[in-house]
Amino acid sequence: MNKLAVVLISGGMDSAVCAGIAVEQSYEIAALHLNYGQRTESRELKAFNDICDYYNVSKRLIVDVSFLAQIGGSSLTDKNIDVPEANLGSDEIPNSYVPFRNANILAIATSWAEVIKADALFIGAMEGDSSGYPDCRRVFFDAFEKTIDEGTKPETKIKIITPLINSTKAEIIKLGAEIKVPLHLSWSCYRESEIACGTCESCALRLRGFNAAGIEDEIPYKVKPEYKY
Amino acid sequence: MNKLAVVLISGGMDSAVCAGIAVEQSYEIAALHLNYGQRTESRELKAFNDICDYYNVSKRLIVDVSFLAQIGGSSLTDKNIDVPEANLGSDEIPNSYVPFRNANILAIATSWAEVIKADALFIGAMEGDSSGYPDCRRVFFDAFEKTIDEGTKPETKIKIITPLINSTKAEIIKLGAEIKVPLHLSWSCYRESEIACGTCESCALRLRGFNAAGIEDEIPYKVKPEYKY
Repeated sequence: MNKLAVVLISGGMDSAVCAGIAVEQSYEIAALHLNYGQRTESRELKAFNDICDYYNVSKRLIVDVSFLAQIGGSSLTDKNIDVPEANLGSDEIPNSYVPFRNANILAIATSWAEVIKADALFIGAMEGDSSGYPDCRRVFFDAFEKTIDEGTKPETKIKIITPLINSTKAEIIKLGAEIKVPLHLSWSCYRESEIACGTCESCALRLRGFNAAGIEDEIPYKVKPEYKY
Repeated sequence: MNKLAVVLISGGMDSAVCAGIAVEQSYEIAALHLNYGQRTESRELKAFNDICDYYNVSKRLIVDVSFLAQIGGSSLTDKNIDVPEANLGSDEIPNSYVPFRNANILAIATSWAEVIKADALFIGAMEGDSSGYPDCRRVFFDAFEKTIDEGTKPETKIKIITPLINSTKAEIIKLGAEIKVPLHLSWSCYRESEIACGTCESCALRLRGFNAAGIEDEIPYKVKPEYKY
């Protein structure tokens, strides 16, 4: 029997590479996309479907989690809070943080995985080179994996695979290029849906990564600053 | 400053008693109700609001989690699976189990709690006298509490309080009567919304509890079998 994995595909670059890695590891993919009321949702959904088409994924589930917008507290979903300019040197948790978002996402993924009998969840979280979100760290995923063990049927065994957890954006981009991940189909900008702004935190992380990898990013940008490490 | 707790209020009897206990412990209540597409949702929502009115709760959040119905796999939400007759002696996990439901509920509760700076989550889960759901056991809640510690901001400290975890239904009903919980405003039936069926698993657990407590259940039933331990 083929191994089956629920892969979280936001439409961003990391999730695209995650899908590519799951394919490389001979998993059949069940693709999960969350619409949590973010500004750029329709563009991200297009990226999700483009990436699924590229990998011939037939099991797709799109879940509305707009309650995260209802709960608020984040610039990603609360339109009263501006999306800030990137500040890559800062140690502070940025206001784009949706409280405990990954736990919500993983809980949904686990429910689906238990129903379709998947063996693993793939999530493209990055600890080292990330924005400092507490729910992007491997200690968090370890704790969640233990929670899955305790909270599902005795026969259910689901691993949380975080293949990018110790990677930099540059390494992810290099790996993606190597295993032919369609990075040009992914979308990262938190602000815009047609031409990426180039200056929000997510654009900055992406552009800095491509720059460091020495690879050209093929998506269109309004401005394209040379972000350095 | 007052202590603030997010209390999960489904509209069932246990959640009503949980609210009563939180009040007894001098917590201000923020009431969270989940609509997960169950058959009897509108009746449960009425029970939620009636219980909130009784305790003068102004912070109320109702979250649509109908993705649990979309994911399926349970007779509570999948209309193609019949709600079974009660079988209280069985060791099997009943088909009313929604996979990993409590993790989804707690993830939402935690996101809200982090935003409103609550100190605790109250959930009326029962381990001993329950239906055998894996996500109703204290080991699961302990694992989830650890996940909260790892996945939220460093300054966020949220306890999961399960005051009924080792209680029987009969003990809960006695305690509820003692601290003047409005049990008559709660709703338990999985099948009906006007007159409780009396024979689904949830009705059976409720009626057995009232019977053992020696207290009369004031809500209307179609049939009222004498369930025994």
